[in-house]
Amino acid sequence: MSGSLFGIGVGPGDPELMTLKAHRLIRAAGVVAYPALPGVESFARSIASAHLPKGVLEMRLDIPMTGAREPAQAAYDLGAQRIAEVLETGSDVVFLCEGDPLFFGSFMYVMARIRGRYRVEVVPGVSSVSAAAASLCEPLAARSEVLTVLPATLAADDLSAGIRAADAVAIVKVGRHLDKVRAVLAALGLADRAHYVERATLAGERVLTLAEAPAPAPYFSLILITKGLDQWLLNRS
Amino acid sequence: MSGSLFGIGVGPGDPELMTLKAHRLIRAAGVVAYPALPGVESFARSIASAHLPKGVLEMRLDIPMTGAREPAQAAYDLGAQRIAEVLETGSDVVFLCEGDPLFFGSFMYVMARIRGRYRVEVVPGVSSVSAAAASLCEPLAARSEVLTVLPATLAADDLSAGIRAADAVAIVKVGRHLDKVRAVLAALGLADRAHYVERATLAGERVLTLAEAPAPAPYFSLILITKGLDQWLLNRS
Repeated sequence: MSGSLFGIGVGPGDPELMTLKAHRLIRAAGVVAYPALPGVESFARSIASAHLPKGVLEMRLDIPMTGAREPAQAAYDLGAQRIAEVLETGSDVVFLCEGDPLFFGSFMYVMARIRGRYRVEVVPGVSSVSAAAASLCEPLAARSEVLTVLPATLAADDLSAGIRAADAVAIVKVGRHLDKVRAVLAALGLADRAHYVERATLAGERVLTLAEAPAPAPYFSLILITKGLDQWLLNRS
Repeated sequence: MSGSLFGIGVGPGDPELMTLKAHRLIRAAGVVAYPALPGVESFARSIASAHLPKGVLEMRLDIPMTGAREPAQAAYDLGAQRIAEVLETGSDVVFLCEGDPLFFGSFMYVMARIRGRYRVEVVPGVSSVSAAAASLCEPLAARSEVLTVLPATLAADDLSAGIRAADAVAIVKVGRHLDKVRAVLAALGLADRAHYVERATLAGERVLTLAEAPAPAPYFSLILITKGLDQWLLNRS
């Protein structure tokens, strides 16, 4: 019988923010796979590193993140093939995913190539959006509020429309798009309500105002715009 | 010195989906607080129940969920006062939150009344949205896609506009609004792409098509509309 592929969210950065289930499956793993930028330590692996069992077989998938999509797609093809070879032997593969596996990550590209041929199970994880809100102690949404997650890679007009249509907004993938996002928020009069969070829950976490945020921002940074805590003291006026 | 209030996400339902940090803090708790509907078992407590230490002091906060907001607000006032009394003695209070504390929950109302006077720390958790996506093995969002979370309590026109503006949508708080949501999705031609998930990650979990979903739906149900897995096999045509 062939093995199963487990896509496991290891959470936003603090190793203690992985779930008990992720911890159990990682501790019992015979083979772990994880994505990495070429030449760089895998972030997902670094979060889980303290829990990797001795003698575990590690399968690093180098995923080039270039402007073009083809090199990454070819890397996912190759990665899925390597994973399938292990599954064929009857071993399970534990795929480590930063944050949540199905929220802006590499796992879904691998899953798309494996599912249908082998059993796949996803273990959800704490997302960077929840982590940033926790670091800020800022509510995301309640009651009839709309929360929208916008990638900073969108055009300025699309960002603006998305922000205006929501009550709370998380802007992910800020990176080199910080100045564009800053201009959009300034034009909307929302600059003072935006919070910048870098490396949420990690040792190097920084929480800054939008004006203080460094451009270009690191990849693992996001911007939250929420209504503010006063909204949760209702019917007081 | 006064104690700290910990708002702790215990995850979407499966007790194994709480984080290692949540588990550690709950195991060490002297006082736990949790919200509950009057006369009903607290969902947050039920998730954490196996981990509650012997002899822990339990503080149940009955929160009436009526159409009017005042009774709930009064209950939060009282709950915050009871929590503050414990914090004054120097003890910490661990507040159990289903899912993520800052994503559609009771905790933010308590936090709004406590923060500024006492130290507050939030431990993020796995949200019901991530859990439902994992149960379905359906990606939420990738690349430049927009993910929007819409409460089913919104008017049909607002739901429709929000759905049209996003690439992926999670509709929460479905409950008695299921028929309205179903009509909106049918009018948009999206009924076949919508998934209904009830009690995600719990023993009673059900994954149904939109047509099969029972009206009224239970409170802990949601609807996901995603682009589908084929989108993650790119540049193949």
